[in-house]
Amino acid sequence: MNNIGHRLYKDASKWLKEFEPDKLNSSDKLIDLGNKKIMILGMGRIGSGAYDELVERYGEQVIGGVETREESVQIHQAAGRNVIHGDATDSDFWARAISRHSTELILLAMPHSQANSFALEQIRERNYKGKIAAIAKYNDDEALLNELGVDAAFNIYNEAGSGFARHVCEHLSPDIKPL
Amino acid sequence: MNNIGHRLYKDASKWLKEFEPDKLNSSDKLIDLGNKKIMILGMGRIGSGAYDELVERYGEQVIGGVETREESVQIHQAAGRNVIHGDATDSDFWARAISRHSTELILLAMPHSQANSFALEQIRERNYKGKIAAIAKYNDDEALLNELGVDAAFNIYNEAGSGFARHVCEHLSPDIKPL
Repeated sequence: MNNIGHRLYKDASKWLKEFEPDKLNSSDKLIDLGNKKIMILGMGRIGSGAYDELVERYGEQVIGGVETREESVQIHQAAGRNVIHGDATDSDFWARAISRHSTELILLAMPHSQANSFALEQIRERNYKGKIAAIAKYNDDEALLNELGVDAAFNIYNEAGSGFARHVCEHLSPDIKPL
Repeated sequence: MNNIGHRLYKDASKWLKEFEPDKLNSSDKLIDLGNKKIMILGMGRIGSGAYDELVERYGEQVIGGVETREESVQIHQAAGRNVIHGDATDSDFWARAISRHSTELILLAMPHSQANSFALEQIRERNYKGKIAAIAKYNDDEALLNELGVDAAFNIYNEAGSGFARHVCEHLSPDIKPL
């Protein structure tokens, strides 16, 4: 099968799943990612920090999260966050995931770099048209993500410093003349 | 010695050091923290991320950093950053450190939590009048910093998520309506 045929087949199977969910048995149950414009994969501390920042910018209804730990999903949902249960490091998740093609930005915020690389490859194999960004702990991880075609990769510690400085200024309002 | 006497003695010895540096022998060499309004202790990835964020806000000349690794200090200086060599986890550093009392904000950004707690205690024992903020990896570390009287403590991973989201929006400009 050539590349175009392969891609068309994947797309067709996806749309079939999307419009005939009743025909599937429970082990094939779909994971509905909904119609969010931004999806965050990994809702630990980093994903939650990103979620809250994005809610401030764009509001709650355009943002969704995916988290693998059930108890964490429950805590997020109780706090009113749009978080669903799913394991983006499992190829079965990707076989069953559907979306309304409304997603424009995916943030890979899982704690292990291989998890983010794997998810990136899965997304790149599908008919996703939006942007993908990821966070990484080490330079090597960042390089690999770039090789795999991520749109932007950022270093955890650099970003921590940047967020830290900004929040210090907001919380402590030091008496220093801004530029 | 009562508390006030103890404090006066410390202050006096500090001023003495500040104004008679020629009388000291080389093993007592002073570490001049300069007249920066903001000092960042620990210029690894987190400290550097904070430094760059603060430079954007307040400009280069009001910010200084202290770093324990010589080669890192050299790299920072070559890049034009105001970073001096010093080990804020060493009580000798604090015995020899002088400043022009112009510092209004100290950021504790060292990688190990004990280092930040130690520096916080050293600063609190001195005649410092400004604010102190710290970054921590774990909830326990954050709690300890608060107990020790830090003005604000932030979690590394939360801040990483916040910085990540903000920089993704700046770099990828997703086509999503802001609030």
